Amino acid sequence: MPNRARVALTISSIAALDRRTMARARARQDQLAKPRGSLGRLEELSIQIAGIRREVMPLLTRKVVVTMAGDHGVVAEGVSAYPREVTAQMVRNFLRGGAAVNVLASRIGARVVVVDMGVAATLPPSPGLVSRKVAPGTANMAKGPAMSRKQALRAVEAGIEVVEDEIRSGLDIVGTGDMGIGNTTASAAICAVVTGRQVAEVTGRGTGVDDSQLAHKIKVIEQALAVNRADPDDALDVLSKFGGFEIGGLAGVMLGAASHRVPVVIDGFISGAAAMIAAGLCPRVKSYLIASHLSAEAGHRAILRHMGLKPLLDLDMRLGEGTGATLGISLAETAVKILSDMATFAEAGVSGKDEGWWDSSRP
Amino acid sequence: MPNRARVALTISSIAALDRRTMARARARQDQLAKPRGSLGRLEELSIQIAGIRREVMPLLTRKVVVTMAGDHGVVAEGVSAYPREVTAQMVRNFLRGGAAVNVLASRIGARVVVVDMGVAATLPPSPGLVSRKVAPGTANMAKGPAMSRKQALRAVEAGIEVVEDEIRSGLDIVGTGDMGIGNTTASAAICAVVTGRQVAEVTGRGTGVDDSQLAHKIKVIEQALAVNRADPDDALDVLSKFGGFEIGGLAGVMLGAASHRVPVVIDGFISGAAAMIAAGLCPRVKSYLIASHLSAEAGHRAILRHMGLKPLLDLDMRLGEGTGATLGISLAETAVKILSDMATFAEAGVSGKDEGWWDSSRP
Repeated sequence: MPNRARVALTISSIAALDRRTMARARARQDQLAKPRGSLGRLEELSIQIAGIRREVMPLLTRKVVVTMAGDHGVVAEGVSAYPREVTAQMVRNFLRGGAAVNVLASRIGARVVVVDMGVAATLPPSPGLVSRKVAPGTANMAKGPAMSRKQALRAVEAGIEVVEDEIRSGLDIVGTGDMGIGNTTASAAICAVVTGRQVAEVTGRGTGVDDSQLAHKIKVIEQALAVNRADPDDALDVLSKFGGFEIGGLAGVMLGAASHRVPVVIDGFISGAAAMIAAGLCPRVKSYLIASHLSAEAGHRAILRHMGLKPLLDLDMRLGEGTGATLGISLAETAVKILSDMATFAEAGVSGKDEGWWDSSRP
Repeated sequence: MPNRARVALTISSIAALDRRTMARARARQDQLAKPRGSLGRLEELSIQIAGIRREVMPLLTRKVVVTMAGDHGVVAEGVSAYPREVTAQMVRNFLRGGAAVNVLASRIGARVVVVDMGVAATLPPSPGLVSRKVAPGTANMAKGPAMSRKQALRAVEAGIEVVEDEIRSGLDIVGTGDMGIGNTTASAAICAVVTGRQVAEVTGRGTGVDDSQLAHKIKVIEQALAVNRADPDDALDVLSKFGGFEIGGLAGVMLGAASHRVPVVIDGFISGAAAMIAAGLCPRVKSYLIASHLSAEAGHRAILRHMGLKPLLDLDMRLGEGTGATLGISLAETAVKILSDMATFAEAGVSGKDEGWWDSSRP
């Protein structure tokens, strides 16, 4: 049985960013020996993180990418160009360290925490695997709800538990990632319902369906919308109607992290759908989110616009797993290093008045 | 006296990228356990670097950012909002490690090589400083040529020498950076002449001039164009007419690196102007260049379009120094790590035919 009070407590603990710390971080950026604002979005990012962490010079040393996996009943409709066994196979690949997210996380010194949220296979226990299986895959959203409302709540709660475990052992920043055959279908349904856009507009090729498969995928999602009549203002209803368990879990990770003032770097389309669920449960969570990249998957742009998030990167990536999140974490680290490690005008002995060097000593 | 033969030899040694190695790197990307093409521009980047290095799995361990400094006679016209002494002051800041480029280079494990190409001050010898001073600042381009053709050739030659020194001690990838009060003025002039665009269209605020100063800056550049009548098809003529020594030096770094099959990550607007000079001397150099970011400085977009380069990042940065280049080097390293460290479908035990996993075992 999920603990409704626990989820409610997490949501109610999400505070606004600390404006005072942000003002101090902004003042420090303006004293550093560079033209004001010349580091652009890195400066903004450093100030956001300072406001999250309540520290003018935050350190981001303890980094984790949480990659959540789950299966989707809707694959029975033939929406994906490959079999659902690949979800479990890729989880094993994550645990062996051979996947893209392992390589990219290792580059930035982050651990990958792999979570079975609902893989339709029995995964043997493994040191790197966290098991929070809600059920072995969701039901087929084209025929009815993907899961019960209780399961949806449990998925969110499990995500909170996973990130709180990491916070207990020390966590400064977290990235989100996903694996689940069929989850671009679930995410497109969530996107269409929450943003109010046409299904065709927000549905993409996932990992590579052809034109006729794409047309079929759109029809299946339209059917799921018609069958389920989800209430766009009830995030738990949206999650339960379309799934999946990994999407609910990632929403929980975002809420749990925000409630402990840990910045969350979100990955692409699936993490974006999870972010819409999280923001539906608690709009305040948005200010704790950092959008790492704009996915090549159709619909991601609509999600980011709806959330008011601007991606840091646009590299035509569409892999998921948390790969984009690792790049965003790296930029976040760079941003805060500027705050802590650069010399001020005074320290550098560079001409400058209080408004900055370029205002100084003009004849 | 510059050695014309040496520059000519460097230019003639720049070969085309190795297509065979690129095809092998592409084939390897397609065997890695991910949907084909799903890492987008990181895949393209890895293949470009493989073609440059002639290695399917290149290693980028030895990294340098070459930050070249020079002064500009045109500051006498009041085109910059701050005094030219800041060039020398910032060089000292680089040498003490307190500048943005030091912080960002340290993040990626790169050394910063600071080069005095023509600072209008006597800089005391320092372990981190390479002195290749062509002259203590250029002449005022609004009154006549910024330098002689001989000096232009010497600047390019000096850049080749600097990067060849680094290559001798081991170099896998190089980033370019600049410091020079007045150098957005010189770069805008180069950009206007080479791309054929209006001066007003490619001239920006540099480190922060106001509207009336910007209008004045544009007039000064238009005057420099009228006085000098540079030949857009003669890169050395363009360089000599507008300067600066650091721009010529950076063009030399690009040519020298390319002649030794070392990829060059270029920074923002000033490095872009240098890249146009380098490409004017040898169009083939373009395939060795990686555009790190789109600068917020007006004109940079025009340069990148003219060069056929697509920036990796767009973060509203406009600092120079090589700061953007460090971020590009980091992405380049990530890109090649994917080639060397990810498991293939076969190694990962993930379902897949020769066309990839998503084509496999569909019922």
